[in-house]
Amino acid sequence: MQNFIFENPTKIVFGEGTIATIGSETRRFGTKVLLVYGGGSIKQNRIYDQVVASLRAAEVEIVEFSGVQPNPVLSHAQRGVEIARREKVDVILAVGGGSVIDTAKTIAVGAVTNRDLWDFFTRAAMIEAALPVLTVLTVAASASEMNPAAVITREEGSQKFSIRSPHIQPKTSVLDPTTLYTLSATYSAYSSVDAITHMLEGYFNNEEVNSPLQDTLVEGITRVIMESTAVILDNPTDYKARATMMWSATLAFNGLTTAGVGKVELPVHMIEHSLSALYDIAHGAGLSIILPGWMRYAADGKQAKMARFARRIFGVVDIDEGQAVMKGIEGLKYWFASIGSPTSLGEGNIPENDIDRIAANASVLAGVWGLEAYTKDVIRRILRFCI
Amino acid sequence: MQNFIFENPTKIVFGEGTIATIGSETRRFGTKVLLVYGGGSIKQNRIYDQVVASLRAAEVEIVEFSGVQPNPVLSHAQRGVEIARREKVDVILAVGGGSVIDTAKTIAVGAVTNRDLWDFFTRAAMIEAALPVLTVLTVAASASEMNPAAVITREEGSQKFSIRSPHIQPKTSVLDPTTLYTLSATYSAYSSVDAITHMLEGYFNNEEVNSPLQDTLVEGITRVIMESTAVILDNPTDYKARATMMWSATLAFNGLTTAGVGKVELPVHMIEHSLSALYDIAHGAGLSIILPGWMRYAADGKQAKMARFARRIFGVVDIDEGQAVMKGIEGLKYWFASIGSPTSLGEGNIPENDIDRIAANASVLAGVWGLEAYTKDVIRRILRFCI
Repeated sequence: MQNFIFENPTKIVFGEGTIATIGSETRRFGTKVLLVYGGGSIKQNRIYDQVVASLRAAEVEIVEFSGVQPNPVLSHAQRGVEIARREKVDVILAVGGGSVIDTAKTIAVGAVTNRDLWDFFTRAAMIEAALPVLTVLTVAASASEMNPAAVITREEGSQKFSIRSPHIQPKTSVLDPTTLYTLSATYSAYSSVDAITHMLEGYFNNEEVNSPLQDTLVEGITRVIMESTAVILDNPTDYKARATMMWSATLAFNGLTTAGVGKVELPVHMIEHSLSALYDIAHGAGLSIILPGWMRYAADGKQAKMARFARRIFGVVDIDEGQAVMKGIEGLKYWFASIGSPTSLGEGNIPENDIDRIAANASVLAGVWGLEAYTKDVIRRILRFCI
Repeated sequence: MQNFIFENPTKIVFGEGTIATIGSETRRFGTKVLLVYGGGSIKQNRIYDQVVASLRAAEVEIVEFSGVQPNPVLSHAQRGVEIARREKVDVILAVGGGSVIDTAKTIAVGAVTNRDLWDFFTRAAMIEAALPVLTVLTVAASASEMNPAAVITREEGSQKFSIRSPHIQPKTSVLDPTTLYTLSATYSAYSSVDAITHMLEGYFNNEEVNSPLQDTLVEGITRVIMESTAVILDNPTDYKARATMMWSATLAFNGLTTAGVGKVELPVHMIEHSLSALYDIAHGAGLSIILPGWMRYAADGKQAKMARFARRIFGVVDIDEGQAVMKGIEGLKYWFASIGSPTSLGEGNIPENDIDRIAANASVLAGVWGLEAYTKDVIRRILRFCI
């Protein structure tokens, strides 16, 4: 096990009926809130009504900022910053999934700085303050509700970059599994892909069998997510399955499964960021295309670990490690396909001829993240495995 | 899954060499520290020197309070309170295991109240403030380093009671696995019993297969602890095994495995508290006596869950649930015995004729904890299974 620091102070309020607590939770941090949400689906499924009623009951003044899109963009967050400043809100509440929460975190930073917001994403500047952020989660995938990260795309140059700071760690997140009942089968599947990929990036990143505890946690949560996803696709309003998926997705990327495994590099997320920055594709869909391709590329150096994965997750019995690895990758692709998530560039409607363009885009982020091993050539090789 | 609130803000600094950080961590909360420790073993194994050097480097003034014994007593903690008040310390640092940390937490409460300290243990008073507590862990078992609880015995009436409050949740805990190298085989084994019992109380408490995520976490961490314990007993300075055990024990009772399983009753801990309050027996040793007996008592109402335990942990293959349960209990007793922990009152040198006395003592705590089902008669029945 590697040395680590684990600190995750977010308060989680979990369960059916808990949205009623968001008013008093918000009131602990301010009296005037910027309510950030997306395209308005929360108005159809009554989540909006519950949130507003709770905020009003707690005497919190509401300023609305809606219109967050999937793969949220910097220019929109900047409009939110202007409103937050003009209205002098003192707390930000995100009601939505990762895109909404990440926009809210970005606004929280922008509201208290005079620097160019993008400087924090290129790591040219350090985040030194932010307004307090709270969340009501409606898509369980990103774990942004319990971690200190946010991902935003700048339209200029199609760059999908991230920030990371304890200042944007949510103070409180309300997780009511019934908010997931109206999530489509497609996005429910993408959510599962995202959560599993978060864990596997740490798992495969890790040195061989050096962290049996973390390996066990990842394998266990992965199996639980796979089982829950099957139930959800069959019955979208199965409370137990939605609840299990919701808390699993949070634990999958809140620092628990990566504490002790060393620096996690996230190459699959890095390359996927270029897919969803350049094309109209959901993050989860991009991940299910890249992950198996990356595993093919990385298999040589991580054979024992990938064989363990194949055995523990898919029950592969081959004694030959190389064969077990390939069957594990095939098993994963088969599972992604079975839940309706694409497993090749073509299935994702991404032109195979664009590999150079994608690699050029991703290599910029590789530079920002310090992943020197991921040169344009290497990324091209990985993408060829994704054809 | 049941509704829950999860909030655990303790900062964990984990790994070899991390004791050097305790000075700067302590300095964040105060400039004059009460350094609480036990019988002086930390002076032999150089932990004391590292702690004092780090505190001095951070310009933290040190007031010492030593002599904490296993199954720590209220009168000793009260002496610590007097010193903390007289010396006007503003922060408490525990260097030790659960007994030392729990004494430090009790002192932290006592230092800022004029109420009778025992009132907080009988639940006659609510904890409303405490000095900040930090820890350097040297025995991985209680998880007190990352939870809001403390257990103390009042000599008068031999009552071993507990307190629970966010105010005594440690701010920072330093976990250096090399501090465990000098822990005896006996206490290493008791530590594993304690950590596993913490998890199983929640696991069996839980309704049948309602929380597959939590079940998976408990089963996984239990197997990891069992594997690590075998390595530790063979080679006490195996870093990977000590590190794995250390972080496993923390996760076993920091709220992670119990979030979502409903109110956890802890009847095994309740009855064990009477054993170690009345007799000279280590907490872990008491638990390995009580847990299998309690499982025999509780088996009827929890047959499916106990059969699952037998199958997942001990590979029991019996199709008949009742038989699987019995084999699981036997497997657990056999494993406790194999690591040198007692599995009957006799092996723990506790007179079988004292069952009435133990039951009378435990039933008082049952009243305080609100475990109405555990009448004196029920406790007697459980204890008879421990003969």
